[in-house]
Parts: sequence; C-alpha cells; structure tokens
Amino acid sequence: MENARAFLSVGEEAAELVAQLDVRPHRAGRDASFYEGFALRGIRADHIRPGFLSCSFRVPARLTDAEGNLAPGAIANLVDEVGAAAITSQGVPGKVSVDMSISYMSTARVDDELEIISKTLGHKGGYSATHILLKNKATGELVAEGRHSLFGKLQSKI
Amino acid sequence: MENARAFLSVGEEAAELVAQLDVRPHRAGRDASFYEGFALRGIRADHIRPGFLSCSFRVPARLTDAEGNLAPGAIANLVDEVGAAAITSQGVPGKVSVDMSISYMSTARVDDELEIISKTLGHKGGYSATHILLKNKATGELVAEGRHSLFGKLQSKI
Amino acid sequence: MENARAFLSVGEEAAELVAQLDVRPHRAGRDASFYEGFALRGIRADHIRPGFLSCSFRVPARLTDAEGNLAPGAIANLVDEVGAAAITSQGVPGKVSVDMSISYMSTARVDDELEIISKTLGHKGGYSATHILLKNKATGELVAEGRHSLFGKLQSKI
Amino acid sequence: MENARAFLSVGEEAAELVAQLDVRPHRAGRDASFYEGFALRGIRADHIRPGFLSCSFRVPARLTDAEGNLAPGAIANLVDEVGAAAITSQGVPGKVSVDMSISYMSTARVDDELEIISKTLGHKGGYSATHILLKNKATGELVAEGRHSLFGKLQSKI
Repeated sequence: MENARAFLSVGEEAAELVAQLDVRPHRAGRDASFYEGFALRGIRADHIRPGFLSCSFRVPARLTDAEGNLAPGAIANLVDEVGAAAITSQGVPGKVSVDMSISYMSTARVDDELEIISKTLGHKGGYSATHILLKNKATGELVAEGRHSLFGKLQSKI
Repeated sequence: MENARAFLSVGEEAAELVAQLDVRPHRAGRDASFYEGFALRGIRADHIRPGFLSCSFRVPARLTDAEGNLAPGAIANLVDEVGAAAITSQGVPGKVSVDMSISYMSTARVDDELEIISKTLGHKGGYSATHILLKNKATGELVAEGRHSLFGKLQSKI
Repeated sequence: MENARAFLSVGEEAAELVAQLDVRPHRAGRDASFYEGFALRGIRADHIRPGFLSCSFRVPARLTDAEGNLAPGAIANLVDEVGAAAITSQGVPGKVSVDMSISYMSTARVDDELEIISKTLGHKGGYSATHILLKNKATGELVAEGRHSLFGKLQSKI
Repeated sequence: MENARAFLSVGEEAAELVAQLDVRPHRAGRDASFYEGFALRGIRADHIRPGFLSCSFRVPARLTDAEGNLAPGAIANLVDEVGAAAITSQGVPGKVSVDMSISYMSTARVDDELEIISKTLGHKGGYSATHILLKNKATGELVAEGRHSLFGKLQSKI
C-alpha cells in the first residue's frame, strides 16, 4: 500500500521547481491564466473554419510524465482547450465543460510534432459537443481521440 | 473565427512565467517528472486500503483557469493520477491509461479543500478500471466524477 | 473482411422470431413503447428516494448475446432507463440523453439476479448527471458501471 | 417519487407483446442470439475495408422509444455491434466490450435511413478502440457519435 503513497509523492527535484513557481491567483478578465499558458504555450492554430480547428503542437519537456511521454493529463488539457476553441470559432458564447472522454492510443515523446484537430459535432439547446484527434505528424499515428461536451454558461451561476 | 485563435493564445504575463520554467526532458527512472510535481504537489493520501484511496488537496493558484476555477485539465490530471494510484495500492504492476471519462459537476476555487476518493472497480485480464470522485470538503458538493481505465504495460512496447 | 459481414448477419432462427414481432410505430403519449417493455419488463424498483433508485432485475433470455451473457447493449438500456428514472425521482421534468459512458467489468448470465443502483450526481442549468452500478446480487461482483447525462428537453425541438 | 416507479413500469400493451416473445436461452455457438437479431435485423454492410465499415439501417418501429425516436439504448446496441464488426474486419480474434461512450446529438424517427460508419482507432496489446458515427442519410445530420473499446478475450475466463 506504500506503493500508492509513493505513487502520489513528488520527487525533490520536481517539488523544488514547482515551489519556485510564483503563481498568484488569477484575476478574472485578464488574459489567459498561468495554467492555460502552461498547458498551451507553443500551440499554433493552422486552419480555422466555423466548427473546425487544426493546430500544431511540439511536445515540450514541461508536459512529459515520468516515462518521458506526453502526460495523459496534458492530453486532457489539449482536448479541453482545443475542443472549446472549436466551439468558440462558431461564435458560440462562453461555455463550461460538462463531459469529457478520451481514448489514449499511443505515446508521444518530447519534441514530437502533433497535429490536433477539433470538430464541432453539433448543438442541442445550450449543449455543444466536439470531437478531438491528436496525431503524430511524422508517423500519422493516432495519439488520442477525445470528446468534449460543453454547456451554455448561465449568467446566474458564474 | 479570430475568437478561436484568441482562445488558444497565451497572455503575455502567463507566457513569460512559463518561459522562465527551465524544465529539462525527464530522465526515466528518476523520481516523478516535473509535470507530476506540477499537477500533484500538495496532495495528501489520507486513507489507503487495497483498491481504495482517499486524498486531500487544496486548490493551488497554479492550477486555476482564466475564471479562477480549478481547470478541467487539472481535474483530469487528478483523475488520472489518483485513479492510477488506487490500482498501484493493489500491487498491480505498471499500467498505461487507455480510457478516461469525466463529468464536471461544479467549480472549485483557489484554496478550496478537496477530498479525492478513488476505488478500483475491477480487473479483466490486463485491464483495470477505477472510479474517482472529487468533492468540496466544506460544502460536500461534488466537483467532478471520473472513470479511468488502465491496461497492463507490455514489456515489448515500452 | 467477410468476418465483418458475418458478424452483422442475423441467424435464421433469430430473424424468424424477430419477423414475427408485430410492432407498430408507437403513438406518443401512450404508455411505454414496445422497446421499453422489451428492455425493462421484469425490473422492480426496491428503494426510491429523491435522486436515488435501487432496482432488482433477473436476466431474461431475450436480452442475452451469442455467448449467453447479458448483452452490452442491454446493459446500456438499463443504464439509460434507470439513470433517467433517478432524475425523474427528483421531479425534474422531461429530459433527453446527451452523454452516456459505460465500463463493462464482468458478465451476467440468464437468470442471474442483478441489483441496479442509480444516483443523481448533480444538476447544472438544464443538465443533469447520474451514476449507475449493476451488481450481481449473489456474488456482489460489479457487472458494469455507467454514467448517463441528460439535458432539459426544449419545448421548441420535440 | 412515484414518478420514478411509473418511469420504469411497462405499459400493458408492451408487456403483453413482450410476454408473447418465446425466447429460449441461447446455445453458444449457434448463429446470432435473438437479442442480436432484434438489435440488428435489417442492417446492411455497404462498404468493408480492414478497420472500416459503413452500413445502412432503416429505423424499425421495434426500436423506438415512448416518443417515437430511435431509443438511446438501441443506438448503444448499434455502437456496440458495428464497432465490434470493424475490429472483426481486421481479422482480430474474439473480443469483449470494456468501455463504451456515446454522445446523442439528434433524434432519428421510424423509417429514417441511417448511415453507420465505424473505424478502428488502433490497438494496444489486446486492447482495441473503435469510433462510430450514426448519420441521417437524408439530412446528413449527426444522430450520435460513439467510441467502443474492446479487450482480447482470455481463453481462461470465458
């Protein structure tokens, strides 16, 4: 059972680097947050059409897991943000995530160049669904496939 | 359509902070990676039994999105890591993520104290599934519910 | 490739039985449809509280797949209906399915007695999420775990 | 709370029709089961390539819910079977369902002609993932999008 504890413990080197990060609580309405910069810095939107988005992203060292692969959580960040951006491309107002599901098909390593494609599947009242693919540009291999559903933000709640 | 591009752009302040992060590619076999430290630093495992894990986590500023809430991607990181830790608590050898699905039920803000509970649902050959809940400790409100499926790592592939 | 065709073909015996089924299109507002009777006949609601529902169900021969196990699609039917019933127990008006996700953990065979538990996870505007467990009553083994999200029916659309 | 009980109750007309169904437990190794005939009868495989399958299906009255739409559970059946058939088209041996997730985007009514497309996303050890789309042929509208993951059947377990 100590395995589980060890699994969640943060190495000394990593802990020190994270401690040095002086991130202050984000003031709403100011740019992107630090977190979004951390998850997305380096992404390029190559093609945008209403309901469609294609991006390039080179896997940075900051997003790799203990085995040197793009972390599953970092892939989830991309599915979240690129899916939401596809909705935004249709001029749909602010939305919040309600459901996300991802299949992890292969690994991506530092400096691998990814193509990230997002398509809007459709809308149903205030509910919108998007489909996201992450591919390795060099090999064409599918890294992950995701779906991200968002729901119209309610003035009264947020 | 410029909305989508703006959506993915990183603010100057955030970009600068991220640029200062000097993360070198992770050497396999050395502690946790920077990414894992970033996602998990501050988490405490409160109760561990085989196939069960309960943790505490105070939402840090570094994991909040543009609206000051714990980012959906940061929740996915927790679902990923705490789910995998529950598997580890049963002494199951190394696994890789295959499927993850999450429902986002409410928001958590900086300094909110979360309870994160993970249970192993079962095993089927090399396949294992876990169930994860994130709750606000003060209000009892459910922040997110997730499922994370892992698959036995194959010697030959990784 | 003929495998795929064979896979989707219906055996003669089955085809004949299905052909004999004289199901007329359902008139809205009249009882449950034939499909719902087919999926649910024999289910018993044992405990109902607002947002919670526990049912019993004995696996009937009509819902078994080619290997004699409760078919994955029949499990999806139960996740759909019992999840929606939990929402109904809170007096929430008509909803339509938007997202469903299921992990299949073990098999159930003809005449196995199942316990099906559904809990409402929460509501977000017109969006509601439920969690569903199917267990084998005799062994306690988890057969499947599902999540079913529904969205407020829009007058204008249906 | 009686709403929930009513929700799960089967109408008299439906109950009678279902009671007349004389389905005997399926003998393994004999054709498809009655259930598969019920879910699939009328489906036509139009195009088959390794890892790809395109089918036509006219919505039959037997698969409609109380509102006259193709039932969410019936859509799950199609996602299950057509996804598995795509795997079969690659000559991959017997598999069992492990994860399925579906977004329901619009409704299909009796006699609507559907196009059902399934693609294999990839394989990881004994694990395979497929992607499934259901479209209305006349309008091109997306009815549902699904993902179905299967896992290599273990000799020892089944």
